[in-house]
Amino acid sequence: MRPLTLPGVRAAFELGRLQPHDLVAELRRRADAVADRNVWIHRLSDTELAPYIDRLANLDIGRAPLWGMPFAIKDNIDLEGVPTTAGCPGFAYLPPRSAAVVQRLVDAGAIPLGKTNMDQFATGLVGTRTPYGATRNAVDPSYIAGGSSSGSAVAVKLGLAAFALGTDTAGSGRIPAAFNDLVGFKPSRGWWSARGVVPACRTLDCVSVFTNTVADARSVACIAGGFDPADPYSRHIDFHAYDQPGVRYGFFDPAVLPGMDDAYRARYDDFVDRLPGSPTVVEPTPFLEAGTLLYQGPWLAERHAALAGFIEQNPDAVHPVTRTVIEGGGGFSAADAFRAQYRLAELKRRAEQVFDRIDVLVMPTAPTVFTVAEVESEPFETNTRLGTFTNSVNLLDLCAVAIPAGRITTGLPFGVTLTSEAGADHALLDAAAELFGEPMESTPGFTVAIAEGGV
Amino acid sequence: MRPLTLPGVRAAFELGRLQPHDLVAELRRRADAVADRNVWIHRLSDTELAPYIDRLANLDIGRAPLWGMPFAIKDNIDLEGVPTTAGCPGFAYLPPRSAAVVQRLVDAGAIPLGKTNMDQFATGLVGTRTPYGATRNAVDPSYIAGGSSSGSAVAVKLGLAAFALGTDTAGSGRIPAAFNDLVGFKPSRGWWSARGVVPACRTLDCVSVFTNTVADARSVACIAGGFDPADPYSRHIDFHAYDQPGVRYGFFDPAVLPGMDDAYRARYDDFVDRLPGSPTVVEPTPFLEAGTLLYQGPWLAERHAALAGFIEQNPDAVHPVTRTVIEGGGGFSAADAFRAQYRLAELKRRAEQVFDRIDVLVMPTAPTVFTVAEVESEPFETNTRLGTFTNSVNLLDLCAVAIPAGRITTGLPFGVTLTSEAGADHALLDAAAELFGEPMESTPGFTVAIAEGGV
Repeated sequence: MRPLTLPGVRAAFELGRLQPHDLVAELRRRADAVADRNVWIHRLSDTELAPYIDRLANLDIGRAPLWGMPFAIKDNIDLEGVPTTAGCPGFAYLPPRSAAVVQRLVDAGAIPLGKTNMDQFATGLVGTRTPYGATRNAVDPSYIAGGSSSGSAVAVKLGLAAFALGTDTAGSGRIPAAFNDLVGFKPSRGWWSARGVVPACRTLDCVSVFTNTVADARSVACIAGGFDPADPYSRHIDFHAYDQPGVRYGFFDPAVLPGMDDAYRARYDDFVDRLPGSPTVVEPTPFLEAGTLLYQGPWLAERHAALAGFIEQNPDAVHPVTRTVIEGGGGFSAADAFRAQYRLAELKRRAEQVFDRIDVLVMPTAPTVFTVAEVESEPFETNTRLGTFTNSVNLLDLCAVAIPAGRITTGLPFGVTLTSEAGADHALLDAAAELFGEPMESTPGFTVAIAEGGV
Repeated sequence: MRPLTLPGVRAAFELGRLQPHDLVAELRRRADAVADRNVWIHRLSDTELAPYIDRLANLDIGRAPLWGMPFAIKDNIDLEGVPTTAGCPGFAYLPPRSAAVVQRLVDAGAIPLGKTNMDQFATGLVGTRTPYGATRNAVDPSYIAGGSSSGSAVAVKLGLAAFALGTDTAGSGRIPAAFNDLVGFKPSRGWWSARGVVPACRTLDCVSVFTNTVADARSVACIAGGFDPADPYSRHIDFHAYDQPGVRYGFFDPAVLPGMDDAYRARYDDFVDRLPGSPTVVEPTPFLEAGTLLYQGPWLAERHAALAGFIEQNPDAVHPVTRTVIEGGGGFSAADAFRAQYRLAELKRRAEQVFDRIDVLVMPTAPTVFTVAEVESEPFETNTRLGTFTNSVNLLDLCAVAIPAGRITTGLPFGVTLTSEAGADHALLDAAAELFGEPMESTPGFTVAIAEGGV
């Protein structure tokens, strides 16, 4: 099924070749045809969709950059009047209003199609830790889709939505992008409001987006982003460009990376070989060590702080793997938490020194990929291995965009992630578009008003 | 004994009226005369002083802004070759190099005279939690000097040093300023390196300075401050002025402040009555609540993280009050620590909204003062009460300067603290100089090279 792009859909609307109502009906047929991928937790009914479609008649397309644009929402992000489950039916609640980012997209004309499947409580990188059935990879259904934003990624790849919101604390917005041949953008922490999102690690949680092109990710970002005084972790982002015209790339020596399978290592090698300029080899230790703090350290206590009460009262409502992981966060003391924060501060300083020498660090998004059967037989270690490169990014206060980077011999996608210091989001997306082979202006007919500084 | 000011001492040197060696000898006589105040833990011997004095012959006074300037160092800040005790003889170690701030001052020509008495492990606001004898107030020795930087404050007030370094996590650089009729400047977190300082709460600790004038505090700040890549909590401070010419002051309604004794309340009332412009009443709740997080919450675990190992192995080496306080930090979980951080983030947002409307918040520095006997008979609650206004300042990422604000009828000093958002340090010191009645240029003959942005 042909994937959707924002300029493609918009051009069809503007030329009168397509009506939102007909597009939504087509997307419903597409979704029916791939129901075995377990993409959705809740699809909006005709009644639920009607207000979003009906209001378009009174919304000037010239002032609504996402007019009629169908999108999917990970089910830990609130949509007014539709249950939020976070992948746990027993946890479900009916939100009285939409999450701040959802509201911004809806205000710009976008149509929410439904809530997508996910690793329960956004705790996982696999897409199998869900009572709604393991989400299946869009390219090869015997493989995992990656998680935790599994359904959102597959929805975009299979052409069921033009874009989809995920969340990304440890890599949940990047791993599924890599496994499903997509762009996955995780903005600087605090640029997009997290108000109305079920917390995983509140100090780190980011809303993210899956798209088919880098240009589409930027278009969504410019609407979704913005300071939210009601979210204590929202920040005024001081956007900056890189200091010099040619982007200074850094990369890890493929030979020294832990846990990389041979096919992935070869593709990463190919990718860094083609980097423009004179890329710099970066020592991976601070990035790898910071990553281990996230799931082997007291940050698990953040997940525990958010959910221990619920799990205690509803032990059987929780996926057994998820429960084991989150309960592991109960054993840490406050002193452990502070000690881990001290260590992180040291590693962050080392990462800053790396980014004094480079603009963009190019990492493999994941070191390997697994079948659904492999993850189900060994649910912990597979997951840990997948986070090797993604885990550190939010802890180190970086922004990141995962992009496709070819295929391995089995036909499965391979992806790399570009990371940069917080606030370099726009410059990073420029670099990503160039490396992904997109023209800088690939959004004909699509105009986004970028409020100066405030986007 | 006449207090020293930087321009006064420097003018005497420049006019040839005084030699550093003679000044140091005079200060030793002064110190001997007030030995019963328990100011010092270690005074440098002639042999220890010699290198600092001898090198001045080869140091051009025109290039050394602190040439020959005698200063005191709180004993939790390293001075090369002299033991650091942090107020605990059993904890003492011999540092191979000076703390980064001390080295900067020494490089500018300053002469370290000794290490000053303090509340053990900088845990206290009283100056009595020390095996070296409770430091006595400079104005009335039956009263406490305030702490934890007790000796440093009294040294400056009694004219034993031109300035003195303290540290300030919960108010240790401000409370002693208030009780001894001094200026106490606590810079924005991360402006002055904390490398070579015994940690109390590493995420919050600041080095601070006591002086007789605001101008002297600024002179020391411009030399002591600067980014230190080896301190993970050092920051590049983006200094900013206030948005408009007239400073917008905020203050608390004196009638609603908890724990204020009547004499202090009356002086605070007088002070805010005389504030220029149209000052704004500020609701104290977020500031007071943030303050309670510091000593009644998991930040105690930071002190526990730093010292639990030592206390366990040397229980008898630790002051019983200090031990009780620090051991209280052992009972918090990592989830408690994160929950407190979430609450702090919310309170910080509320404080930011206050600082959207005002530039400078004027608080009483302390709500009351106690005699040494009162603190010794009730060592916990007296201390807690003293921190009512100071505790929140570092948690909320504010800079602060305590200034004298008259006397109460017993003749004891009263002080207020001016606070501003991080990075407003220079603007805050301008405001403080104006309120304290100092001319903006009160440092004749004293030139400090202010490196642009980097100071």
